[in-house]
Amino acid sequence: MRSYHLVPDTAAGMVVRRRPVPVPGAGEVLVRMRAASLGFRDVLVGEGDYPLPVSPGVVAGCEGAGDVVDVGAGAARFKPGDRVALTVFPDWLDGPFDVEHAAQLGTTRDGTLTEYAVVPESALVPVPDHLSHAEAAALPLTAVTAWNALTGGRRVLPGETVVATGTGGVALAVVQLAALAGAHVVVTTGDPGKAERLRALGAHAVVDRRGDWPAEVRTLTAGRGAALVVDVAGALGESVRAAAIGGEVAYVGYRVADAPTGPPVDVRALFDAGVRIRPLAVGSRAQFLELTRALAVHGVHPVLDREFAFDEAAEAYARHRSGQAFGKVVVTFPTGDRPASASDAEFPGNLSRELAGH
Amino acid sequence: MRSYHLVPDTAAGMVVRRRPVPVPGAGEVLVRMRAASLGFRDVLVGEGDYPLPVSPGVVAGCEGAGDVVDVGAGAARFKPGDRVALTVFPDWLDGPFDVEHAAQLGTTRDGTLTEYAVVPESALVPVPDHLSHAEAAALPLTAVTAWNALTGGRRVLPGETVVATGTGGVALAVVQLAALAGAHVVVTTGDPGKAERLRALGAHAVVDRRGDWPAEVRTLTAGRGAALVVDVAGALGESVRAAAIGGEVAYVGYRVADAPTGPPVDVRALFDAGVRIRPLAVGSRAQFLELTRALAVHGVHPVLDREFAFDEAAEAYARHRSGQAFGKVVVTFPTGDRPASASDAEFPGNLSRELAGH
Amino acid sequence: MRSYHLVPDTAAGMVVRRRPVPVPGAGEVLVRMRAASLGFRDVLVGEGDYPLPVSPGVVAGCEGAGDVVDVGAGAARFKPGDRVALTVFPDWLDGPFDVEHAAQLGTTRDGTLTEYAVVPESALVPVPDHLSHAEAAALPLTAVTAWNALTGGRRVLPGETVVATGTGGVALAVVQLAALAGAHVVVTTGDPGKAERLRALGAHAVVDRRGDWPAEVRTLTAGRGAALVVDVAGALGESVRAAAIGGEVAYVGYRVADAPTGPPVDVRALFDAGVRIRPLAVGSRAQFLELTRALAVHGVHPVLDREFAFDEAAEAYARHRSGQAFGKVVVTFPTGDRPASASDAEFPGNLSRELAGH
Amino acid sequence: MRSYHLVPDTAAGMVVRRRPVPVPGAGEVLVRMRAASLGFRDVLVGEGDYPLPVSPGVVAGCEGAGDVVDVGAGAARFKPGDRVALTVFPDWLDGPFDVEHAAQLGTTRDGTLTEYAVVPESALVPVPDHLSHAEAAALPLTAVTAWNALTGGRRVLPGETVVATGTGGVALAVVQLAALAGAHVVVTTGDPGKAERLRALGAHAVVDRRGDWPAEVRTLTAGRGAALVVDVAGALGESVRAAAIGGEVAYVGYRVADAPTGPPVDVRALFDAGVRIRPLAVGSRAQFLELTRALAVHGVHPVLDREFAFDEAAEAYARHRSGQAFGKVVVTFPTGDRPASASDAEFPGNLSRELAGH
Repeated sequence: MRSYHLVPDTAAGMVVRRRPVPVPGAGEVLVRMRAASLGFRDVLVGEGDYPLPVSPGVVAGCEGAGDVVDVGAGAARFKPGDRVALTVFPDWLDGPFDVEHAAQLGTTRDGTLTEYAVVPESALVPVPDHLSHAEAAALPLTAVTAWNALTGGRRVLPGETVVATGTGGVALAVVQLAALAGAHVVVTTGDPGKAERLRALGAHAVVDRRGDWPAEVRTLTAGRGAALVVDVAGALGESVRAAAIGGEVAYVGYRVADAPTGPPVDVRALFDAGVRIRPLAVGSRAQFLELTRALAVHGVHPVLDREFAFDEAAEAYARHRSGQAFGKVVVTFPTGDRPASASDAEFPGNLSRELAGH
Repeated sequence: MRSYHLVPDTAAGMVVRRRPVPVPGAGEVLVRMRAASLGFRDVLVGEGDYPLPVSPGVVAGCEGAGDVVDVGAGAARFKPGDRVALTVFPDWLDGPFDVEHAAQLGTTRDGTLTEYAVVPESALVPVPDHLSHAEAAALPLTAVTAWNALTGGRRVLPGETVVATGTGGVALAVVQLAALAGAHVVVTTGDPGKAERLRALGAHAVVDRRGDWPAEVRTLTAGRGAALVVDVAGALGESVRAAAIGGEVAYVGYRVADAPTGPPVDVRALFDAGVRIRPLAVGSRAQFLELTRALAVHGVHPVLDREFAFDEAAEAYARHRSGQAFGKVVVTFPTGDRPASASDAEFPGNLSRELAGH
Repeated sequence: MRSYHLVPDTAAGMVVRRRPVPVPGAGEVLVRMRAASLGFRDVLVGEGDYPLPVSPGVVAGCEGAGDVVDVGAGAARFKPGDRVALTVFPDWLDGPFDVEHAAQLGTTRDGTLTEYAVVPESALVPVPDHLSHAEAAALPLTAVTAWNALTGGRRVLPGETVVATGTGGVALAVVQLAALAGAHVVVTTGDPGKAERLRALGAHAVVDRRGDWPAEVRTLTAGRGAALVVDVAGALGESVRAAAIGGEVAYVGYRVADAPTGPPVDVRALFDAGVRIRPLAVGSRAQFLELTRALAVHGVHPVLDREFAFDEAAEAYARHRSGQAFGKVVVTFPTGDRPASASDAEFPGNLSRELAGH
Repeated sequence: MRSYHLVPDTAAGMVVRRRPVPVPGAGEVLVRMRAASLGFRDVLVGEGDYPLPVSPGVVAGCEGAGDVVDVGAGAARFKPGDRVALTVFPDWLDGPFDVEHAAQLGTTRDGTLTEYAVVPESALVPVPDHLSHAEAAALPLTAVTAWNALTGGRRVLPGETVVATGTGGVALAVVQLAALAGAHVVVTTGDPGKAERLRALGAHAVVDRRGDWPAEVRTLTAGRGAALVVDVAGALGESVRAAAIGGEVAYVGYRVADAPTGPPVDVRALFDAGVRIRPLAVGSRAQFLELTRALAVHGVHPVLDREFAFDEAAEAYARHRSGQAFGKVVVTFPTGDRPASASDAEFPGNLSRELAGH
């Protein structure tokens, strides 16, 4: 089987290697991957800017979905043929994040840009029937983060205002999910041309983030401000200004390097605003299950930008990095061309053979 | 001005009396009532079956809406012309119910079946623009109870299942509001002919309550049971059977006398089910404000059955008691026939003159 | 190694069998057991009255502690020599209980009445330094249930009243832990002779449960009632009467057979009381960790009644069943008499050999 | 009666004026003040640095307690002779703070540095028997803020670590109340000489805030960090470093002018820490009631620094401003020297007569 491994100081930061298809141990499941998805995290990892440790040679990618092809002893929740998505943090099953949950696909554990993956059964979530593998691959980091932002902190009631800042993957998921929850949904964008698509996803109002968007949010809420602002960029000063007293800024990521964050938070303004700030990243498996149930009940599909073939991973990264994508960039995998029982023998010279040319 | 006063041992349990229009004191507001609504509580009160104290001679009705016509000293939140609804518990502003909040319209304080009412400004809620007075009068007990059932206890996430038992006023509001919140909404009814109307209000499934409806709920939820069952009848054994482990029964009322409740709760079945039971009644003013915001954002209207004129209050009660109503029974009030500044002089012989036959 | 296996239709319901010491697999830990503790659950299991499935031949006991002697591949949280307690539900790591967490020591998985046990590392909790193995063995079901009752539902604030009903193991833990949390602690007992010991554990008041104890609780709380009643017997009618409006009954177990529960819950009284009922059993590993931290910070020790030797398990059960125990009944295990590396060879004829006379 | 009125551009920023004793209106209570307490807020107000509006001429002070001497029509909760404390925000009865609750003693409404005060009965809290008037006057802002910090946001479990930064009034109350709640209590100070007194109040550890105190907190918590840091100075960067992942900084105030805050919050460090920031000020009347119950159950007294006579208010302010106080600075009021029924006639030339030199 082929996988993209993170190897520093190579051209793309990744190389494809062939290895034998692994055998699931006790409590483990072997998944034939069908799609993987890329996000901002992967760009950071690829560029060596990720703030957490990355094991050299690890398989890249933290979002993905596929089909169960084999289960180890005692793994009873899934059977061959089941469609599953992988969780980003295989040990984070429920409750708040803790250091015990730090192991992460694509950084410290082999990730999703691979033809086969082995994970514990507790690190899998069934894919709802109405979603394709590509759509399911768009959920584990992006949509789960949006779900956690909306449900893991301050409760958002129907009729309360939620602001999604920007139109990246997480923000689009926030728009869709906040609409499901009955929120009054506002989204900021620097490209008014996207307004119609944003409204179709559930936004009640689209405001121009190049202007004084916090003031606009106040206008839209009769001066009160938003109950929840999902801040994907760390522009906390602005987000705090857009939030209501007693409101919350769900702070899901910051920009780095070439896209500097806004100025740091003024402590006096923060106090006077009476707004909570809650940093968060991804969510637990329990939250992922909640998310899939919500999507299934309402037949909601995540927004996909474009699908790339397995061999086009570099192009997929480039598409994501371009900032032009509207929705998730997905890499889909070959099917049918190789037996699930693929053994070592198929791949002479396997184990860490780097393929030239990528 | 005329009001319906609760007077035991009269034919209808109520008589109409004329009194001078009251003058608002400090912090108070005078409201020209435009509509009042009846509910199960009012039937109990009228029949002497209400479990809490009722002051003889008090003005009947706990749900109502009208127009501000005058404000007392220091009452700054409202001005003449504002459309307002009254809260059932004028002292219950926020937080959980407490004995300090026990004063209640229509039992210990003069209620809403009156042409004018004076209440503290903190006992009023602005009526959203999209609602008529009659619709606003349908909210204070009925829809606020439904809102509290959905938001005051176990949090219901989008995609989780909510069951409304029956098709009374509270149950219909539960269907509408649970749908707003993105729930998977199930409603029970003994009259399959209502299914279409229930689906139009937001129900995803309608089950026959004359059969084993808890088993049907389990089937609809892949065996899991509902996250929340709103039980309006005290059929707790059935509701517990319909709820998921970790789920909740929001228990909003019981039947009396001729409509006996189900059998009492078996403690062993309750333990094994792992289901919480939360009794609740109405909600705080803060919850009422949350409700009106949700209705306004989504343009949702409460379901009205029929409107009756002020002089037809007895017919209105009869309609409610008939069990035939689908939606709220509302009494609307004369307008334009009498100046807002109506003074004592208009009503010679006022102060407690009972009108024969009213 | 020797273990007590549950075998229906034997004299004690259990037999001792010898088997080879197991080898920990990937992610697993081998624990040399040092103490196991008995509870009401074990009596039910032993008598065939437990409401959940019990696998014939399974090793008995769900509470226990010991020393790590070996770890499998990838199990990095513990090392040989670490003192650990086992969790009752090895798959319930955090969050609310779910059907996925149903596997349970001593019923569907081998339990703690054994000289060695193998469990996943995620099913272990470190034992605080100040506790003996016997004390640690008293925690997994009993004290974790008390902790969950106090922290998993309605939040109890310092100064609020908590009632523990009875003086069983869970109730004593409730007294100790509620006192830690600053509650006003009331405990009921049928034996006034225990009052002094109960006060020493943290009780502010001891009331006679043979009288109208709910009325006494109201007297002690200026008529308000308790914020939380931990009901260990399913006497829900009484518990509801003792609780404040907005309060909660944490319902942790019911009596069976010879000790009948109180009458079932009257739905009208429950509604009028405005008291929530929350059934619960045990708690998650995350809650167990919280508990051990609280015990360590405050140097609190669980209450032990008496320790029995491994060969005296039958006497230990009898002691528990007698109802005379004040605190937990613990079975402690031989030490030093056999190498941790005990191999199959030590036990010729192992694998299910039943020892006559147990 | 005499009161201290805030008058800009006078020597002390305040003047004493005599006015007639007011008469309580409907729902109001007349309180003979017995003690008022000063805090950082009052220094800000006095110096014109308070960020919210201050009505010129308003009576100063927001913390105070006294005896009920008269009640208006319909005010039934209190009777003459009752000992009461005033709430800082008379309209904030329960639930989260809202703009509707903005009216505040000592800025927009007449405050507590007065011999008599009239407030709505809903703006009073009974004083527990074990507290003096001076002690009760130390609660409304200071201890209520501490209570809100500990109970209004992230729940603190027994055994979790709470850090109080500094030894001001709020911090001392945090130490006392966190100890009541079973927390592991750490306090920072720049004066190690206070350590013994801090331990006597309930602190488990005292760390030097002139060093790297966040690192010390991590050491004290086995690397984990504190569950809750109560930050009274806006040193958010440090507080975030001291808090555990998933922990919270309860941010209760910032320094101004001569005592600059720490640097603004770095957004990247905040995200990586996974720590929530919750600004808060004071608390609701419901929280005040909770606090007094906790103090009463445990017989806890707030820490008083020194009491000053009514005529020594300037000296009291100076004491507070000196930073030397350990505990609350209280102004106590003359008793017995004037009848509770004091009438206008006693004070010829009343109504706004400013006393030179006060």
